[in-house]
Amino acid sequence: MSIKTMDITKIITGIGASEGIAIAKAFRLENPELIIEKKSVTDVVQEVARLEAALEKSKSELETIKEHARKELGDDKAEIFEAHLLVLSDPELINPIKDKITGEKVNAEYALDEVAAIFINVFESMDNEYMKERAADIRDVTKRVLAHLLGINVSNPSMISEEVVIIAEDLTPSDTAQLNRKFVKGFTTDIGGRTSHSAIMARSMEIPAVVGTKKVMEEIENGLLVIVDGLDGQVIVNPSEETVKAYKKKATEYATQKAEWAKLVNEKTVSADEHHVELAANIGTPEDVKGVLENGGEGVGLYRTEFLYMGREELPTEEEQFTSYKTVLERMEGKPVVVRTLDIGGDKELTYLNLPKEMNPFLGFRAIRLCLEMQDMFRTQLRALLRASIYGNLKIMFPMIATVDEFRQAKSILLEEKTKLQEEGVDIAENIEVGMMVEIPSSAVNADLFAKEVDFFSIGTNDLIQYTLAADRMNERVSYLYQPYNPAILRLVKMVIDAAHKEGKWAGMCGEMAGDEIAIPILLGLGLDEFSMSATSILKARSQIRHLSKEAIEQYIEAILSMSTTEEVVSFVKKQF
Amino acid sequence: MSIKTMDITKIITGIGASEGIAIAKAFRLENPELIIEKKSVTDVVQEVARLEAALEKSKSELETIKEHARKELGDDKAEIFEAHLLVLSDPELINPIKDKITGEKVNAEYALDEVAAIFINVFESMDNEYMKERAADIRDVTKRVLAHLLGINVSNPSMISEEVVIIAEDLTPSDTAQLNRKFVKGFTTDIGGRTSHSAIMARSMEIPAVVGTKKVMEEIENGLLVIVDGLDGQVIVNPSEETVKAYKKKATEYATQKAEWAKLVNEKTVSADEHHVELAANIGTPEDVKGVLENGGEGVGLYRTEFLYMGREELPTEEEQFTSYKTVLERMEGKPVVVRTLDIGGDKELTYLNLPKEMNPFLGFRAIRLCLEMQDMFRTQLRALLRASIYGNLKIMFPMIATVDEFRQAKSILLEEKTKLQEEGVDIAENIEVGMMVEIPSSAVNADLFAKEVDFFSIGTNDLIQYTLAADRMNERVSYLYQPYNPAILRLVKMVIDAAHKEGKWAGMCGEMAGDEIAIPILLGLGLDEFSMSATSILKARSQIRHLSKEAIEQYIEAILSMSTTEEVVSFVKKQF
Repeated sequence: MSIKTMDITKIITGIGASEGIAIAKAFRLENPELIIEKKSVTDVVQEVARLEAALEKSKSELETIKEHARKELGDDKAEIFEAHLLVLSDPELINPIKDKITGEKVNAEYALDEVAAIFINVFESMDNEYMKERAADIRDVTKRVLAHLLGINVSNPSMISEEVVIIAEDLTPSDTAQLNRKFVKGFTTDIGGRTSHSAIMARSMEIPAVVGTKKVMEEIENGLLVIVDGLDGQVIVNPSEETVKAYKKKATEYATQKAEWAKLVNEKTVSADEHHVELAANIGTPEDVKGVLENGGEGVGLYRTEFLYMGREELPTEEEQFTSYKTVLERMEGKPVVVRTLDIGGDKELTYLNLPKEMNPFLGFRAIRLCLEMQDMFRTQLRALLRASIYGNLKIMFPMIATVDEFRQAKSILLEEKTKLQEEGVDIAENIEVGMMVEIPSSAVNADLFAKEVDFFSIGTNDLIQYTLAADRMNERVSYLYQPYNPAILRLVKMVIDAAHKEGKWAGMCGEMAGDEIAIPILLGLGLDEFSMSATSILKARSQIRHLSKEAIEQYIEAILSMSTTEEVVSFVKKQF
Repeated sequence: MSIKTMDITKIITGIGASEGIAIAKAFRLENPELIIEKKSVTDVVQEVARLEAALEKSKSELETIKEHARKELGDDKAEIFEAHLLVLSDPELINPIKDKITGEKVNAEYALDEVAAIFINVFESMDNEYMKERAADIRDVTKRVLAHLLGINVSNPSMISEEVVIIAEDLTPSDTAQLNRKFVKGFTTDIGGRTSHSAIMARSMEIPAVVGTKKVMEEIENGLLVIVDGLDGQVIVNPSEETVKAYKKKATEYATQKAEWAKLVNEKTVSADEHHVELAANIGTPEDVKGVLENGGEGVGLYRTEFLYMGREELPTEEEQFTSYKTVLERMEGKPVVVRTLDIGGDKELTYLNLPKEMNPFLGFRAIRLCLEMQDMFRTQLRALLRASIYGNLKIMFPMIATVDEFRQAKSILLEEKTKLQEEGVDIAENIEVGMMVEIPSSAVNADLFAKEVDFFSIGTNDLIQYTLAADRMNERVSYLYQPYNPAILRLVKMVIDAAHKEGKWAGMCGEMAGDEIAIPILLGLGLDEFSMSATSILKARSQIRHLSKEAIEQYIEAILSMSTTEEVVSFVKKQF
């Protein structure tokens, strides 16, 4: 699929974050600086009217955005804009602004900016994440109103009505929530990596994306023709007709390939030498099950239960949780569903728990560490899971297990709740498998000890890589150390799989790596039993595995694990398999 | 050495952070809240005089503290008080306070508090660590003056003139700098662990200490008789005469034992079965060499060069560094000196480098990662080291190596500087060994790959443990996961030692664990070649090793590495060796 590029004006290289080809005009998502001057006004009535007009315009804009979000992304994601609308109607904020205009005879921009600053300051100084988010809401909304007052056009992705490629420094959750899939053909950003929020969103929306280019905002003007090649991680600016033609061909080829993959939706995943593995999907909500089945998922390898706890002001009840778990199990129709118990802390905060700030949250009080201490919360989740177990094939998995003690404690709490429920006469499935995430180096190194106590392992590569190489995967300055193919990672993965098999247990993987085309041959050769990935990666992976021979790869495993660097591994795999 | 405790009023358990027994009256280090009220004054001249008197008192107090610090801890540590004195004489701070008193006819406390708040705010809002430290200085000094104005006694450890045991929530560097070793017999704190700052200071000052008790401030009143048992991590409050007698006996026994150990100062370190290992010391400055030699150190296993870079406003010159390295090498008289190149970032900041704040500094841009990018700084250090090499037995070690690539890069920069110096006609020692810290899980798992390229390994257990178990060792909520004897840690240590020996290289350890009496038998059995520890632990370790048989321990290694928990390992070692 290589393409001659002699007539191309500019090629910018980045990280292919979501596959596919997009060809459209550039639409820059700007974040202009708003300069507020203090001015005297004589006609304060007219100035208040000007404020009200700007407020109304902002409200109607937000209503449109909210509707978009609701249709495209569901009620959850639309809630943030409901919060923004509430801010605009809050008399405690709006009245002081009007008072300031009339009392001090100043312009609306200045009055708004001053009053908002006081509110933002007060909320921000509170030692409470929920209140700090309110400060962020006020800041966003204020900016929107100020832009209207100043007559500045703040780019608004929800207003796009022709086919475009979005050019941005980064895309925030609220930006992505506003993208209209009909018109936004692709996007490219200056910052971010394969696991950044915008990249994950792009894959789940199936929009081609190239992130981490470092210079699209500098290089690409509005309206220029742009090709986003999410397959090879390239952005072509101002391409010649010939290049456009070549990329259209590449897009057609990719579409053909996708159509081929689609034929595999009801097939088992079998290698060229008849070795069967399971391809499962990572999900966050019951709604995601549809995508899993459409993409031929053989199970759910990771159900992240955090979403049940997020975007709300108190813990979910046992009943709410039960309903979600039951729904997922029923919709998966007896296929295995691995539910991970609550994994918060670290970069995932629950504002209403009021956890103290930590110096190194990734090395802090999170996931099972927190659940073993906040047992009421943990037991509620376990009860909901146990009650739901009869509606499908449930497996329960504990996150962030570092020591055998922790696993034993978590499992004994589960068994306590099971006994209690049974005494209450509640039906619970027989033989619920209980396993653990392997995402901390100690549990990989001690996998043989754990294998005697668990029913299965699921390797969480995102965390395992960052701890094993001691590099925060969100930190750009050390991102070069996020190395899935580093021999140390592959060796740890091997230890886990071997330890599981020795005790007759199974080993899966639910990190980004499980769906990666360089990693898949190695993982197959190492004997991984279950690969859990984004639903949209399953068919491609199934196609890839059908062309691989496990036995053939096994012969090279020792050589691969003895290579000194990631680069050697990658170039070997690319050449050999 | 067990003691009957039937007549003891209260026993508080904590972490024995520094060995020895202290028996003395409690001295609480309080941090009282100062409440400032605004009051009108009529006689402003008298009010200004009151301010000046408080300023003078504070200055004379600070002079005393500064002199203490200079004598006890050296010029470096005294500098902080010089900075405090400068604040008190700064007309830009003092004049506005006086103006406020006379202009607004308010009391001195209020005027001082208001003016200081403005300065603190301005300095704190600056995006510069140096300026933020200035804010902290102003806050400390203001508090001292306010206490004098309010007639409140702020406890001041430098003013202690009878034998006491200090009771505190925690001890800051500036608190410890003020401790008078003549009168302060021991201390105990609510927070902290074996590797916290106060614990390390206690060991280097040889003051018995028990930290992390969680309740000494709640339980111990001023003047109560207290026993601090740093050997067993206990604090006995209000002991009976009999108990005091028993502890005096225990203290005598400990003193006798120390005297026995002292006889080993010129002995080699040899196990009962004639296996020789090297006991070296960790140092921070040339001054520390004296303690190393007095305690029979066979070398310096870790010279932390950070201190050269800290407490100043710009990078140290090549000449300054050369002088320090030369001094250490000369004073060590040909004994090996392992110098670790700059390890900053993480919890160790250099304000003048203006590094950006990180979300997870322990997983961030630090040590070799930073040196490979800020090469001018790195090359200056390497040149200074190479030039100093002819004055002793220098070995160079790179910190925080995660990948083979990083080691290769660091080593090639070293070789470039060596060639340049040789071309300039500078004498450089032959055969300088070049090694690396193993403190990141990936480098332990890949030790066989590294062993082909390095001359030696030094295992840094403090970091290795926190990354392997994914638990910030400074974070109290996950401190239970700081497990030196976790089988995963012992297995990684084994991988490193075995890999080194297979290539004919040596392996040392320079973390806290190397001097730990539970760890020493296991490490001896695993074949560790060099143990580097606090100088004050060397003689005890030498005595312990003389009673251990390496061969006997080797038979149990497999069993120890197959134990599931830290507790099993500890109780086995305590019983068996």
